[in-house]
Amino acid sequence: MPKLTAPDADFSAWYNEVVREAELADYAPVRGCMVIRPYGYAIWENMQRALDGMFKATGHENVYFPMLIPQSFLAREAEHVEGFAPELAVVTHGGGKELEEPLVLRPTSETIIWNAYKDWIQSYRDLPLLYNQWANVVRWELRTRLFLRTLEFLWQEGHTAHATAKEAQEETERMLDVYRTFAEDWMAVPVIPGIKTALERFAGAVETYCIEAMMRDTRALQAGTSHFLGQNFAKAFDVQFQNEQGGLDYVWATSWGVSTRLIGALIMAHGDANGLRLPPRLAPHQVGIIPIYKTDDQRNGVLSVANQIADDLRAKGIRVKVDDRDTVRPGFKFNEAELRGIPVRIELGPRDIEQGNVVVFRRDLGEKETMSRDGVVERITALLDVIHATMFRQAIAFRDANTHRVDTWDDFKERTSVEGGCGFLLAHWDGTSETETRINEETKATIRCIPLDDDREEGTDILTGKPSKRRVIFAKAY
Amino acid sequence: MPKLTAPDADFSAWYNEVVREAELADYAPVRGCMVIRPYGYAIWENMQRALDGMFKATGHENVYFPMLIPQSFLAREAEHVEGFAPELAVVTHGGGKELEEPLVLRPTSETIIWNAYKDWIQSYRDLPLLYNQWANVVRWELRTRLFLRTLEFLWQEGHTAHATAKEAQEETERMLDVYRTFAEDWMAVPVIPGIKTALERFAGAVETYCIEAMMRDTRALQAGTSHFLGQNFAKAFDVQFQNEQGGLDYVWATSWGVSTRLIGALIMAHGDANGLRLPPRLAPHQVGIIPIYKTDDQRNGVLSVANQIADDLRAKGIRVKVDDRDTVRPGFKFNEAELRGIPVRIELGPRDIEQGNVVVFRRDLGEKETMSRDGVVERITALLDVIHATMFRQAIAFRDANTHRVDTWDDFKERTSVEGGCGFLLAHWDGTSETETRINEETKATIRCIPLDDDREEGTDILTGKPSKRRVIFAKAY
Repeated sequence: MPKLTAPDADFSAWYNEVVREAELADYAPVRGCMVIRPYGYAIWENMQRALDGMFKATGHENVYFPMLIPQSFLAREAEHVEGFAPELAVVTHGGGKELEEPLVLRPTSETIIWNAYKDWIQSYRDLPLLYNQWANVVRWELRTRLFLRTLEFLWQEGHTAHATAKEAQEETERMLDVYRTFAEDWMAVPVIPGIKTALERFAGAVETYCIEAMMRDTRALQAGTSHFLGQNFAKAFDVQFQNEQGGLDYVWATSWGVSTRLIGALIMAHGDANGLRLPPRLAPHQVGIIPIYKTDDQRNGVLSVANQIADDLRAKGIRVKVDDRDTVRPGFKFNEAELRGIPVRIELGPRDIEQGNVVVFRRDLGEKETMSRDGVVERITALLDVIHATMFRQAIAFRDANTHRVDTWDDFKERTSVEGGCGFLLAHWDGTSETETRINEETKATIRCIPLDDDREEGTDILTGKPSKRRVIFAKAY
Repeated sequence: MPKLTAPDADFSAWYNEVVREAELADYAPVRGCMVIRPYGYAIWENMQRALDGMFKATGHENVYFPMLIPQSFLAREAEHVEGFAPELAVVTHGGGKELEEPLVLRPTSETIIWNAYKDWIQSYRDLPLLYNQWANVVRWELRTRLFLRTLEFLWQEGHTAHATAKEAQEETERMLDVYRTFAEDWMAVPVIPGIKTALERFAGAVETYCIEAMMRDTRALQAGTSHFLGQNFAKAFDVQFQNEQGGLDYVWATSWGVSTRLIGALIMAHGDANGLRLPPRLAPHQVGIIPIYKTDDQRNGVLSVANQIADDLRAKGIRVKVDDRDTVRPGFKFNEAELRGIPVRIELGPRDIEQGNVVVFRRDLGEKETMSRDGVVERITALLDVIHATMFRQAIAFRDANTHRVDTWDDFKERTSVEGGCGFLLAHWDGTSETETRINEETKATIRCIPLDDDREEGTDILTGKPSKRRVIFAKAY
């Protein structure tokens, strides 16, 4: 197995190598498009299953809207078209003929969905509509990177319609909290929930909420967004309803989404010099069993015990892979299991079997322990939760160690002048887009979010010295 | 609720009304595209879950390949491009610029996948690759109908690579059998497995296997196909591997798919004058509970028992909907539950509760039965299997009653001269595309398949009188 570039030396090279060597994804023949390979797709399936369950538990239903949108639809909402027009892919020919109106491949589905909502919503009795779809979208990005930013990507997009602003606001925050819970309880990635500034807001939203995570190079990554859309799309598509009092109102809206980008977040939040470290609840293989043997007799004995342990673990719902290949040696298998981030590795040789033991390797700590085969299923079941908690604590500790309160422009400039990430910089900002733009131009840092926490300390803007009501989070971002 | 057109009077109008009134799908603003609404999508999700489980149980893994394919890729396999070129949608602009090479939206993914297989397959050790993807595809069809034929549709496409022709042939037949099992055990639709004639073969395949079902208007519907692709795509994309003897061979291939068309099949195989009849294993709601009450007191009492029964059923894994709307009357709810094809309806009023009974309506037979509330969960669990078996038997009986052995050209012409379906006509064919085309031109009937069964009776072609080794199935088809 080729040695990975050290993440400290070149994080970006390390990332690309991990994605390719762990066989998560490949570049496709069309620039910026991606082939998601079985191991990468299995992570996505686990993410989908968990998220879909959370969406349904909060009352949402799945639907599917067409990918092809008449180009004129996007123009109906002024900010929306301004935001997405530069990134559109356009179908001009179908069935051998030039189309009368060009069609765009959905970059997001607000327009096509609100066009249908006009038919489906007449009265307050038709509300709320709580719909989600799993789909591919296309955005013609110039700089692409596997999982993080690709021309086509997979995601889910929720699109809800409500009778009141309050309900829509609550939905926006509820779904942000679903994303926060998913990031913490499934990905073991701590996130900061917050509000985007006007410059970073979704094109067409009144307010964009987000969760922001820190990667191992201390850059920030936006891991999910939930938008309060106000009545913007209802007005653009003329979606009115009869309210309980008999009057006519425009419908209130939200939309929210996460994408295959989360796989990139998983890699960069937990990976190390040896490759991936996957959180147990999303790992395609939670346990890898590697038999060690020399003779055929040993092989039969060891494999028989390995398969027995695997079956016992599977009976408890644990995903297990027995690596019984004869074409590579155990040392290669160990390295590969580490590269692929398998949370628990069980090594099993003839002497272990004699002694009634197994050797258990934890990927999170890189530590081996010999344990008795008796009760191994219960101990591994518990261990997977421990590993999740450990990885989550590690990520919190890393983030906290790389979060700084910054009070002077000199300090801010120095911290942001380094190559790569500068961590999270908690600094005061005067609330204007003008200042935000100047800071970005001078330092490459952007405001990731205005956190939702209660830290309301007043102060003065890091650059302009103008008054500020609270600190915001600056960082260099993906 | 508007009354449906009688299926006997105008099957096509009945179909469209059922799809719209049961809120399965709507037409989208782009001609021939479809919005799949929550009730329709829930059927698709149940289909996906069952099929995905069967694919994984037969060793397949999921992947995702890009939707955008360089136009030149399709031209690499001569028959493939000839078959698909007339149906392509073409992206000519991206990010505000004209593209150097136009991109097509995948009509199917053999080309983009075999382009990647070239990188992934070097040795017999890399084989087999058993991959599947769930995706949207686009085919610029002229005549469209919701679910049956739309410009964009959802499907799964399996693409496997093998070291020998024998293995690929076995895989082709294995996946056909998975589809047959799914049609019978989940959809309650009997199908005839067979081989397509050269004229109906997938563009690029050596042999296309299919399952053919009969709809209630006695037309045929192709419900799934499994292709033995030989070495055609391996040669087109130069995918060779080192075999066990050290020589170089081209890789052998299969592909196989089913689509949202199956929802159309479900509607047309089981529906009746009152709407959908859904087979229990795929129904979004297997049981609908409709409370009957006048006063608020009655409402509380009835709903409390209804919710208790619902919880008890859900604990057994049964999907239940309690229709507790106050805005419509029970009679409306009964009709709606029938329109939506809910297999079992439980009616529950104050007198039923007093007497410890429930009224159970079976959608398959249209019959009501009063049963004791004691043991109702066990009886309904068993009843769902009985309903599946009954619907399957009904469909077999209908198909058999509309299958005819035809031995003279006069009889063949008369049977096919009716408006609409002519059933399955078992007739002899001389094996030439020329005769097949002539029969089609004169009668609109096509050869649906050469069945895989053992009915090897010899005879003479229905039109030409030339010798024939066995009967094939002619029908008018969707």
